[in-house]
Amino acid sequence: MTDEPAPVIALLTDFGLRDGYIGVLHGVIAGIAPHAQLIDLSHEVAAQDIAEGAWILHTAWRYFPPQTIFLCVVDPGVGTARRPIALQWGARYFVGPDNGLCTPMARAESPSHAVVLDNTAYHLPQISATFHGRDVFAPCAAHLACGVAITALGSPLALATITVLDQPPPQLHAGALVGHVIHIDRFGNLITDIAGARAIDALASPTLVARLRRRRVAAVATTFAEAPLGVPALLLDSSGHLAIAVRNGSAALTLGAQKGDEVRLSGVPTIALGEIGT
Amino acid sequence: MTDEPAPVIALLTDFGLRDGYIGVLHGVIAGIAPHAQLIDLSHEVAAQDIAEGAWILHTAWRYFPPQTIFLCVVDPGVGTARRPIALQWGARYFVGPDNGLCTPMARAESPSHAVVLDNTAYHLPQISATFHGRDVFAPCAAHLACGVAITALGSPLALATITVLDQPPPQLHAGALVGHVIHIDRFGNLITDIAGARAIDALASPTLVARLRRRRVAAVATTFAEAPLGVPALLLDSSGHLAIAVRNGSAALTLGAQKGDEVRLSGVPTIALGEIGT
Amino acid sequence: MTDEPAPVIALLTDFGLRDGYIGVLHGVIAGIAPHAQLIDLSHEVAAQDIAEGAWILHTAWRYFPPQTIFLCVVDPGVGTARRPIALQWGARYFVGPDNGLCTPMARAESPSHAVVLDNTAYHLPQISATFHGRDVFAPCAAHLACGVAITALGSPLALATITVLDQPPPQLHAGALVGHVIHIDRFGNLITDIAGARAIDALASPTLVARLRRRRVAAVATTFAEAPLGVPALLLDSSGHLAIAVRNGSAALTLGAQKGDEVRLSGVPTIALGEIGT
Repeated sequence: MTDEPAPVIALLTDFGLRDGYIGVLHGVIAGIAPHAQLIDLSHEVAAQDIAEGAWILHTAWRYFPPQTIFLCVVDPGVGTARRPIALQWGARYFVGPDNGLCTPMARAESPSHAVVLDNTAYHLPQISATFHGRDVFAPCAAHLACGVAITALGSPLALATITVLDQPPPQLHAGALVGHVIHIDRFGNLITDIAGARAIDALASPTLVARLRRRRVAAVATTFAEAPLGVPALLLDSSGHLAIAVRNGSAALTLGAQKGDEVRLSGVPTIALGEIGT
Repeated sequence: MTDEPAPVIALLTDFGLRDGYIGVLHGVIAGIAPHAQLIDLSHEVAAQDIAEGAWILHTAWRYFPPQTIFLCVVDPGVGTARRPIALQWGARYFVGPDNGLCTPMARAESPSHAVVLDNTAYHLPQISATFHGRDVFAPCAAHLACGVAITALGSPLALATITVLDQPPPQLHAGALVGHVIHIDRFGNLITDIAGARAIDALASPTLVARLRRRRVAAVATTFAEAPLGVPALLLDSSGHLAIAVRNGSAALTLGAQKGDEVRLSGVPTIALGEIGT
Repeated sequence: MTDEPAPVIALLTDFGLRDGYIGVLHGVIAGIAPHAQLIDLSHEVAAQDIAEGAWILHTAWRYFPPQTIFLCVVDPGVGTARRPIALQWGARYFVGPDNGLCTPMARAESPSHAVVLDNTAYHLPQISATFHGRDVFAPCAAHLACGVAITALGSPLALATITVLDQPPPQLHAGALVGHVIHIDRFGNLITDIAGARAIDALASPTLVARLRRRRVAAVATTFAEAPLGVPALLLDSSGHLAIAVRNGSAALTLGAQKGDEVRLSGVPTIALGEIGT
């Protein structure tokens, strides 16, 4: 045993914690790579919601150690022609279906290697039609954790063919920036796709006017506790995105908001100069 | 320290994740067997539903490493005369109440050793009347993980006296095979007790007629994605059981189905020849 | 590597398991202290409910190994002037906001050291205003697990200034002991603040009369299974507190009870002699 830290396998799925599916993934991995450290990123992604899975990966992956294998299975196309893939950046890997889940990692940096997981020697002996998380993805992630080269897991894949999500960035319309609610978290906070310098610019502008569902969100806060009670307030959330929160309450309930709702910012002279997209 | 893989303790309970009960089980085990690898199989078994716990164990236990100790606590009889037991097969163990939870493992293979956990030296010093998971089962599982012999944990138990669930297999009635919905998973998939060769035979028959709650389930699919949208379809699920699923939806909601509902298969000439039961 | 057991980090939060926040905490810790053993105590504390978090900690902390770091984040005041703190008792630590969460540990024994976490060298390089769990508390806990001295994490803190919850103990009124429901668990069991010798005395008294919401709770049981079916019964729960349970059912639903409801015990001549409080 060397002094190198053990590889981490971070699991992200929509399997839920009730049916034992996640326990089985852990069991399969423990049988192949007992030294790997397993971390459950989330298993409560809304069923088959690839965009939500990608959002969680977006907010999380940079906080994991370099030697992390992201095992991501939100897989409505399981058993069809959609490709099972693995991607590599240094000691960091993505293993999962080729359906856009990998978007945050693939957009941030081009992988050094990409393969289709077509070498069945690294799968379980019996492959079901409906649970490739157990039969294909978990064993392949575990073999990577054991030091198997990604190129052994299957045929090379042209980077240009990897599926990435089509997520149009916020748009400028007549001096207003129009984004959308892209995630609603457990606290009912509404997180938008307006991020980075644009979000910071908007929050700093004394003339900012923000609207969601035609309703004005007037308060701006730095922290949850600073917001006036019961009133939706704009703030910069921990992912660097503009968010709407209600102190000790739920902005989603207060505003009757849903994922996809339009968020319109005006009165920010410099917003067009902010960096584009996320 | 040898190169042998660390023992795995797989936990299966109905304690839920809210109240800290599971954290306490992990804490107790970490104090006794810090080298053991803990895997949460599920803690969301419906409260006191022994059959559901046994179902999850049925689908899962073969996917764990040989050196796994299954610590299973769905225990409506806690504190009564129901016996706390441990069973051994090689390096694999079951630890839990003697109420039928162990059925899938005990039916698959006869254990080499079985004991009642009546040696209090391996329990916590204080035993509550209502939380034997913490006070009895977790410490005994942890001591097994430390290499304590099962025979040290208590008195021998006659195998014939171990409680197994009375689960009548699907029955033939007038050429039809009548089974039941035995589990509904997070996705709303209806999983039946029709399994193995019988399930495969049925799905392969061009003349198959399947009914649930008098409603015909006409489609047959190999994968979720192959099923027509919104229409319940029959498929072989990842546990080898016949299941009914709705693509990107919930078969339970679409059909108004409940656990225990009858599933009737006819038009399968060879079905009587299939293997019996699961 | 020595033979000392690895430090344990026990996590207690209200972040839920859906949004990936907990996965990120684990990831941050794995990057700093890969040898630490992480145990999730609970992440389903009701949002911003400090008292519920403290209750779970109260029932749990004594069951963890001595070398446990309790990383507790229920933090409605995140980003405000509320202090981030760490406390030490031997090899046991508390890391979290100074808002009363630490009450059970701080009341049981006075810490040997207490600091404000104001040394930013042990925080993440970028500190958000809304997620100190990730940016401050998790890194500080991980550094403690690596052997960093608590005094390196920040300035000394006067013990007298640490926030503890104001939880008035049960009161005697005209010979009756009046307590409250302080927790309702997943099974619908109602757990009261009447504990220890007083709870034992009450349950042993043949003349005990117990009322909740003016309704008499007449049955007394030692175990859940011993209680008559469908009837609320008093018992001593696994935390040593008097509780009301319904066999194979929910006392909360049966009695329409809520947290904070008054529980009144009379007919116990010796109850005034019992130990005070919990």
